[in-house]
Amino acid sequence: MDFWFTERHTEDVQLSIRLDKHIFSEENDNNRIDIFESPEYGKILTADGYIVMTEKDEFIYHEMMTHIPMAVHPNPQRILVFGAGDGGVVRELLKYPEVERIDMVEVNTGVVEAAKKYLPFSAGGLDDPKVTIHQQNALRYIRHIVGEYDVIIIDSAGYYGPGESLLSREFYGSCYKALKDDGIMVNQHQSPFYDEDRVETQNAHKRIVNSFPISRVYQAHIPSYPSGYWLFGFASKKYHPTDDLDAKRWNERGIITNYYTTNLHRGSFALPAYVERLLKRVE
Amino acid sequence: MDFWFTERHTEDVQLSIRLDKHIFSEENDNNRIDIFESPEYGKILTADGYIVMTEKDEFIYHEMMTHIPMAVHPNPQRILVFGAGDGGVVRELLKYPEVERIDMVEVNTGVVEAAKKYLPFSAGGLDDPKVTIHQQNALRYIRHIVGEYDVIIIDSAGYYGPGESLLSREFYGSCYKALKDDGIMVNQHQSPFYDEDRVETQNAHKRIVNSFPISRVYQAHIPSYPSGYWLFGFASKKYHPTDDLDAKRWNERGIITNYYTTNLHRGSFALPAYVERLLKRVE
Repeated sequence: MDFWFTERHTEDVQLSIRLDKHIFSEENDNNRIDIFESPEYGKILTADGYIVMTEKDEFIYHEMMTHIPMAVHPNPQRILVFGAGDGGVVRELLKYPEVERIDMVEVNTGVVEAAKKYLPFSAGGLDDPKVTIHQQNALRYIRHIVGEYDVIIIDSAGYYGPGESLLSREFYGSCYKALKDDGIMVNQHQSPFYDEDRVETQNAHKRIVNSFPISRVYQAHIPSYPSGYWLFGFASKKYHPTDDLDAKRWNERGIITNYYTTNLHRGSFALPAYVERLLKRVE
Repeated sequence: MDFWFTERHTEDVQLSIRLDKHIFSEENDNNRIDIFESPEYGKILTADGYIVMTEKDEFIYHEMMTHIPMAVHPNPQRILVFGAGDGGVVRELLKYPEVERIDMVEVNTGVVEAAKKYLPFSAGGLDDPKVTIHQQNALRYIRHIVGEYDVIIIDSAGYYGPGESLLSREFYGSCYKALKDDGIMVNQHQSPFYDEDRVETQNAHKRIVNSFPISRVYQAHIPSYPSGYWLFGFASKKYHPTDDLDAKRWNERGIITNYYTTNLHRGSFALPAYVERLLKRVE
């Protein structure tokens, strides 16, 4: 049977993945969530027709969002996560025994329920007693918190979950305030390759540079995302993302990863010339 | 008009690019070459239906194949290139004034003629007096050469040009012999992401590890290639790809690049854990 999912990366480029089955679909006030089963990418979670994650390459995204800040921070105990309803970031966070509490702000709890049922490889940790899920708007949650978190991870493409408010200057300023004096925030910087995505990369970067004293961008290859090339932002009050990485300390933890290594950590902050230039333009 | 080029990356994944025009097509004994014009990727060169390069992202591939060995070698004067009929590698090589002679072995001179006519952004250097094009089988050319080249660049997917013989152990052994005592060879290692490509990555790596004392793999993001994630091999008789990089020397050259930087050079050798493991399995 020829049964395909197709995502437009731009008006003029599209990626298609052959499907076996359509196993879940739900429409709510926020968006439409679907889960498909595919021979090449395994389970695929989409929001409004855009790939949120696939079983085959989610490890890249989730490891790079989680282990980069967690390897730099010497003692990350209180963690705040925005979005992340699929559970992948929480799964990685739970590999650190010193994590005491994970607050997860996800407006769309439908994703959480679907992930628990259909994406156990990713959502397994969402029932852990350390995890509290807050079904709330991101900005409303963060606005009045001061000095509480060691690490904040903003895991949302804006496609689903808190959406728009995650991109505002007020939001990043509130995250700064909600972090302890040596806190670290990471977020998605989208892909810099196609013209229409590049603007989002630059906007995110500009707002974070204005809010944090230390702000660096790092990269990963995520084949199911537009252009397969993805950027993340590392913003911090105190720690430098590579100078303050204690590779020995992280490696002694014995955490098993498929993408992240402490060498790759350092390498991922070395960006192509064209990306350096487009970030510099808004710094 | 809906007019699309589609490439199957696996049986179950395909990338499609909207086209404006089909501007060249030629079939010879070796293969079928086509050139298309597209709104997102500009000119696209294909061989037997596979993308060889696009105007939008060829800089990534050509800069990473060329500047990595050229920045490590202290005095690269005599260069041998296999394939490379589109001219991109030669364009980058000609940025080094100490290059005295470039021998290019390309069995399919039809590509060269088409590139000169339709891909001037890439093929502009092919008429340079330093360049000699040998229309010959790669293995036949290299077999009897001893100690002649500083750098060998194997720019062929096996899709067109010398093809099969480029992947044999005899071929890599002959390249070793053809290099001077401090010579460097780079080649494509394909993409390690999809199962069916991974075998080629491992085969290439295994044969090179057996032929050269120093052999390392490096990476780049090339959006128009399968999975957008591509590996290259750096093989050398003497120089280490990062320890022997003299960043100051290269930066003082003032060469303008869009992808390559000396920081990225170092970073590109830091590979994901899953790639490290699959390479280690054949070392």
